[in-house]
Amino acid sequence: MFKINENYQKLPGSYLFSTIAKKVAAFTAANPDASVIRLGIGDVTQPIAPAMVQAMHKAIDEMADAATFHGYAPDLGYDFLRRAIVANDYEPKNCGISEDEIFVSDGAKSDSGNIQEIFDADCKIAVTDPVYPVYVDSNVMAGRCGEYDPDTQTWSNVIYMPCVRENGFVPEFPKKTPDLIYLCLPNNPTGTTIKKEQLQSWVDYANRVGAVIIYDAAYEAYISQVDVAHSIYECEGAKSCAIEIRSFSKNAGFTGVRLGFTVVPKELKCADVSLNAMWARRHGTKYNGAPYIIQRAGEAVYSKEGKAQVKEQVAYYMNNAKTIKDGLVSAGYEVYGGVDAPYIWLKTPKQMDSWQFFDYLLENANVVGTPGSGFGPSGEGYFRLTAFGSYENTVAALKRIQSL
Amino acid sequence: MFKINENYQKLPGSYLFSTIAKKVAAFTAANPDASVIRLGIGDVTQPIAPAMVQAMHKAIDEMADAATFHGYAPDLGYDFLRRAIVANDYEPKNCGISEDEIFVSDGAKSDSGNIQEIFDADCKIAVTDPVYPVYVDSNVMAGRCGEYDPDTQTWSNVIYMPCVRENGFVPEFPKKTPDLIYLCLPNNPTGTTIKKEQLQSWVDYANRVGAVIIYDAAYEAYISQVDVAHSIYECEGAKSCAIEIRSFSKNAGFTGVRLGFTVVPKELKCADVSLNAMWARRHGTKYNGAPYIIQRAGEAVYSKEGKAQVKEQVAYYMNNAKTIKDGLVSAGYEVYGGVDAPYIWLKTPKQMDSWQFFDYLLENANVVGTPGSGFGPSGEGYFRLTAFGSYENTVAALKRIQSL
Repeated sequence: MFKINENYQKLPGSYLFSTIAKKVAAFTAANPDASVIRLGIGDVTQPIAPAMVQAMHKAIDEMADAATFHGYAPDLGYDFLRRAIVANDYEPKNCGISEDEIFVSDGAKSDSGNIQEIFDADCKIAVTDPVYPVYVDSNVMAGRCGEYDPDTQTWSNVIYMPCVRENGFVPEFPKKTPDLIYLCLPNNPTGTTIKKEQLQSWVDYANRVGAVIIYDAAYEAYISQVDVAHSIYECEGAKSCAIEIRSFSKNAGFTGVRLGFTVVPKELKCADVSLNAMWARRHGTKYNGAPYIIQRAGEAVYSKEGKAQVKEQVAYYMNNAKTIKDGLVSAGYEVYGGVDAPYIWLKTPKQMDSWQFFDYLLENANVVGTPGSGFGPSGEGYFRLTAFGSYENTVAALKRIQSL
Repeated sequence: MFKINENYQKLPGSYLFSTIAKKVAAFTAANPDASVIRLGIGDVTQPIAPAMVQAMHKAIDEMADAATFHGYAPDLGYDFLRRAIVANDYEPKNCGISEDEIFVSDGAKSDSGNIQEIFDADCKIAVTDPVYPVYVDSNVMAGRCGEYDPDTQTWSNVIYMPCVRENGFVPEFPKKTPDLIYLCLPNNPTGTTIKKEQLQSWVDYANRVGAVIIYDAAYEAYISQVDVAHSIYECEGAKSCAIEIRSFSKNAGFTGVRLGFTVVPKELKCADVSLNAMWARRHGTKYNGAPYIIQRAGEAVYSKEGKAQVKEQVAYYMNNAKTIKDGLVSAGYEVYGGVDAPYIWLKTPKQMDSWQFFDYLLENANVVGTPGSGFGPSGEGYFRLTAFGSYENTVAALKRIQSL
């Protein structure tokens, strides 16, 4: 009789966004006239910009003609896209990353969930707390996390690095030595980030203890400060200890288009085994490439017009972030993030816990956000608002919050 | 110090298609005037048909407008596509499959590689020999296959079911009891298939021994005989023992468009645990949905125009299959497949082994095919040609082979 992967049974229900959806549905059913504004989920709302739209139309016409039709894509992604990535994201910062270190994929979520596969089942992972749930859940599925304690909401075999106002949301080196360190910077959910010199100290730490940093840079396009690294490969020595995951979702609005890439440097090795070769093998065995049409859209993100258009879109969302941040500050809230990331992380007022504040905000301002405790125990007492709404809705939401 | 997944080190090099590419490159370098015809890789050549092209253009225009923009897709796929799948692929055959049993993905390769994750690491797999390499390789990566013996080209912990002319390429129930049985029908690479009553006996066997059948139906659109099942769910009892994987690559020419789906029936359980719920959890954690644009193209495959156009495309390739088959038979070859599948499986003549015949065909007819031994030890002495070329090239290739 076949048996299942019992690790799946250990996972607590993924109730965060479904609980939110249920609460919102119940509220709107009871208050049909309420105009609810959703600043909860990190999904973009602005349409795909013209350069990418044009590139996709053109690619579809190519697919409609036998002479220019494209079948299976190269495993690692088309040369035209990998060249554009290297030329625009890595060469200007002298990262020393080459095209055969770029693996194009259908998005950062897939890659950040799958990357753990190439590591040993006994590797110990370290994550920030709060954290994007995919890092932990994918390792639970692989049996790396031990047992879940519902009281503390932690896993017995995971190293947590609390990020709270007391440490400025900067993770500290853990006491136990990890094998894999997940860092998402700028951070989801806190919206905060660290300086390049702090990131350099993490690279030095990883090289010293023999750990690999899984660096999720999905929000790098939102960085506004000059002393913050856009890529971990701006740090010396990162190529021997770091894998970087990038997304087109949050800079080019590709959440529904699906495109991302992962960088696995050839210098990254375990004894003589190249992790670049391992990831290539994984890609070649379990994946068949991103659609030609979508890879052409990715290429257009790096065209002159595309760059100007996505810059404008990021500026639009960052103006929302400023609107939220300034509005909350003027209403007396304690607020973090929103400078280098499209997320605002606020301290809940009046000793409310995260879910109490969720209910309070929904009922009194008809605004939906995300309770910080949903991202981990250290998120308790915090609340996330996203800058991905329309400007009009964002302004309206803040007016309501200010008049509470 | 971090450690790698050592199972990857056990994998022999994936040299089949790269070896072929190198041999072809060397030949064309030495013979620059030779016009090489490629009937090796199973990639389509006909352009995307108008209904799907039109649907994608429309979807892109929707993505270009904030009022009709689509962000993250639902985890399981859009309702419009899952409804079309159920209404067209399952309801007409009374399979009793519902929309919440359909999981839309970026293709059958990803799904057939990932599906093993939800099973225990100790599950024993059974595969046909020859076989599509992804089934075995993905299980090797998960540590299920034991050790590789380069002499026999087999894994110590895999049950092989030889499919050769002596058994009509029909797998027999294995002596050892498997937990997971991979069946690709119609088959890649042999191009053969089994009757519905034979498939029913496999379903009965799986239910009797408590095994799960991973049923790869990527080539179902090519079935021409009436007593062959298009879906395993046409067999009684299949919903308690079978997962079906489908592809749009070979019916609608989507190899470069990327779309597929997997059916995990709610009846399929291990004790009380629903595999449908497990696969939903996997999908929700490590995947973010197929692109909206591509899902609209999938919907168009089921439109009246789309159905007529993909039927025409399949007929085009099957006419190639007939051309190859008839041409080889008239040249005295022993030939299998090509009736319910776009692959022709021929016995190599004059005691040549698979690679000798490869060289012979390349050098003397300038035609590229795939050596059967690349698909497993029982493929030795066979050779695969695909029907996915253009009609003109297919006719030309056969003329050359006939005049050898």
